[in-house]
Amino acid sequence: MANDNAAAPQPPSGERPGVRAQTEPGRWEGVAVMPYKQTAEAPFQDVSRQLLFSDPSLACEWRYFEVSEGGYSTLERHAHVHAVMIHRGRGQCLVGETIRDVGQGDLVFIPPMTWHQFRANRGDCLGFLCVVNVARDRPQLPTADDLAKLRKTEQVADFIRTGAE
Amino acid sequence: MANDNAAAPQPPSGERPGVRAQTEPGRWEGVAVMPYKQTAEAPFQDVSRQLLFSDPSLACEWRYFEVSEGGYSTLERHAHVHAVMIHRGRGQCLVGETIRDVGQGDLVFIPPMTWHQFRANRGDCLGFLCVVNVARDRPQLPTADDLAKLRKTEQVADFIRTGAE
Repeated sequence: MANDNAAAPQPPSGERPGVRAQTEPGRWEGVAVMPYKQTAEAPFQDVSRQLLFSDPSLACEWRYFEVSEGGYSTLERHAHVHAVMIHRGRGQCLVGETIRDVGQGDLVFIPPMTWHQFRANRGDCLGFLCVVNVARDRPQLPTADDLAKLRKTEQVADFIRTGAE
Repeated sequence: MANDNAAAPQPPSGERPGVRAQTEPGRWEGVAVMPYKQTAEAPFQDVSRQLLFSDPSLACEWRYFEVSEGGYSTLERHAHVHAVMIHRGRGQCLVGETIRDVGQGDLVFIPPMTWHQFRANRGDCLGFLCVVNVARDRPQLPTADDLAKLRKTEQVADFIRTGAE
């Protein structure tokens, strides 16, 4: 889910002191809505990204991702971890080989090198907060071998989206 | 707001893989509700603390604090920063010399060495998420001189709670 493209335009940093109100669900004063990824090779659909806090002394970035109806985040893994809280809507997530329904307020932890993907329910969006170490590796996409292994589990095979559907 | 008491019992770490559901507003599967602070000298009232994520590789801790009706967090400052999102309820916060109403979804950034305090509205609680660097300094309480300076602003004088009210 991370944006690790160093060449991408940097959003304004989130360290403005004091309050920035949520103006509507999933939108905030002074927070730009950005493309999810700049890299064309990473498959995803209907996802936006916002950087809520990125102060240099925080050591982490606090981001917000929103998957629109029918959309999905990139199926990927990486050495760094993700700490996630669902902010709005409902959907499902894959963590390793486990698929779970998730809704507002639920927590999700993505351990190192664990395949993961978020999908919104039909008729709903899925907005989630994601805290991540500033110092992190680039996400890995599944190889054909990785996909073959993942698809050995029927539920996982049905769930994952790789842009080839 | 930070718990910086090294002698305090450590809660279970938050790195359990996958989903931990929000079982009711402000309560999660496998997340213990703890005292706000262990230090008697720091004034506060009716605040609980939960550690949502504390994975060693995250570099940050993601906590949840809940101020009950009539309660307030400690008036304090420190060199480290706080990244806050209101999770439930309504209240006010002081950041520096500015007092603002806050409600669900609003963001609050506490810069270094900035006096801050959160209070719940009458008839409501104020629950907020707070992300903080794992490596951080201990909070400072206001001295008599600090309080005298803060109280030069009438609104601030009316707002702050120091346990002496």
